[in-house]
Amino acid sequence: MPAFIFDLDGTLVDSVYQHVLAWHAALQSCGFNLSVWRIHRRIGMSGGLLSRALVRELGREFTPDVAETLRKRHAQEYGKLIGQVQPLPGARELLAELTKLNVPWAIATSGALKTAQSALDMLNIPKGQTIITRDLVKHAKPDPDLFLAAAAELGVDSTQAMVVGDSVWDMLAARRAHFLGVGVLAGGYGEQELDQAGAYRVYADPAEMLLHLDEFGVREN
Amino acid sequence: MPAFIFDLDGTLVDSVYQHVLAWHAALQSCGFNLSVWRIHRRIGMSGGLLSRALVRELGREFTPDVAETLRKRHAQEYGKLIGQVQPLPGARELLAELTKLNVPWAIATSGALKTAQSALDMLNIPKGQTIITRDLVKHAKPDPDLFLAAAAELGVDSTQAMVVGDSVWDMLAARRAHFLGVGVLAGGYGEQELDQAGAYRVYADPAEMLLHLDEFGVREN
Repeated sequence: MPAFIFDLDGTLVDSVYQHVLAWHAALQSCGFNLSVWRIHRRIGMSGGLLSRALVRELGREFTPDVAETLRKRHAQEYGKLIGQVQPLPGARELLAELTKLNVPWAIATSGALKTAQSALDMLNIPKGQTIITRDLVKHAKPDPDLFLAAAAELGVDSTQAMVVGDSVWDMLAARRAHFLGVGVLAGGYGEQELDQAGAYRVYADPAEMLLHLDEFGVREN
Repeated sequence: MPAFIFDLDGTLVDSVYQHVLAWHAALQSCGFNLSVWRIHRRIGMSGGLLSRALVRELGREFTPDVAETLRKRHAQEYGKLIGQVQPLPGARELLAELTKLNVPWAIATSGALKTAQSALDMLNIPKGQTIITRDLVKHAKPDPDLFLAAAAELGVDSTQAMVVGDSVWDMLAARRAHFLGVGVLAGGYGEQELDQAGAYRVYADPAEMLLHLDEFGVREN
């Protein structure tokens, strides 16, 4: 029986574009002028890695102070946009179907619990479900720690665990954990970008994945 | 000598993500709940086609009243975000270099002049430069009217004219005009999406294109 480990932003909730503009505003407020698409392509990796990479691209110095300021301002700016964020089509239904079929599943996000909580609240998650946030591991994506922690808590190994995510960082972290990566387009990456990063299958969104659960060997018992 | 016809949003100014969230808010205010990435993939086509396509995807009826309300609300919502919009790296420098080398160039945008004006103002455009906006042609992209009108005003034909754009709609409209399409990644499409739509070359942004003008046969005279 397979087990699914889901990314959160851009995979289950429609929040990537708000996160992108929140990082853009945070970076701009610190004097870092970056094109928005370059931020989009880093979303989903650890916030620390993201800001370090972007500041370095500008040839500027990255200090712990800058990191902390960026982290705080991103959370503030994202807070202003959270009212626009909704679950992606089929997200609740997919999780409910997996629960009904007794397929193990978890959520593993590069976001801190504080930032992720409002998105998690939209998904009608059963009590006791495995949720791994940034706070619980040493390194976020593209390191495999989040997915490995989720698999350990579910009690599944690499012959069972599949990672569902919208970004190449999800696919790369999945490969480092020896898990299959499954892409969704809902975060705004192109299909070939996810393919190239090693996606086993790519779907538009959770609604389309729900229609194709047989492609993972999910069976009614 | 080649001639360049530039798209505006996502090609010369960094405004695609703001347009995407403005359409998202406009659609939501009319009761149309669409995933943000689906809107992103339609940006750059005619606003009428975009809203018609998205409303149809929801299986809802599209009326002239709805079209007009969406158009107005998009303009309002975009107005709130315009303060975040900046020229893309190298955009001003690229246009200035083409002017210096006497290479004919124009801008052709699916946006109405009223919406596009603030973006145009950022680019230090010389007086008398050819600017074709939505108001001046019958159909916007992916129809070729905007690009054909620009080429006619520049007095160039399909052996000279090249279209520079960030979206597949630019590439498709270029092909219908028998012009070469040149992609930039700055609108957030993946490189392969632009390739598949027929891009002759793909650059990150105007700054990278400026470094490679020789790839178009641009020569100092």
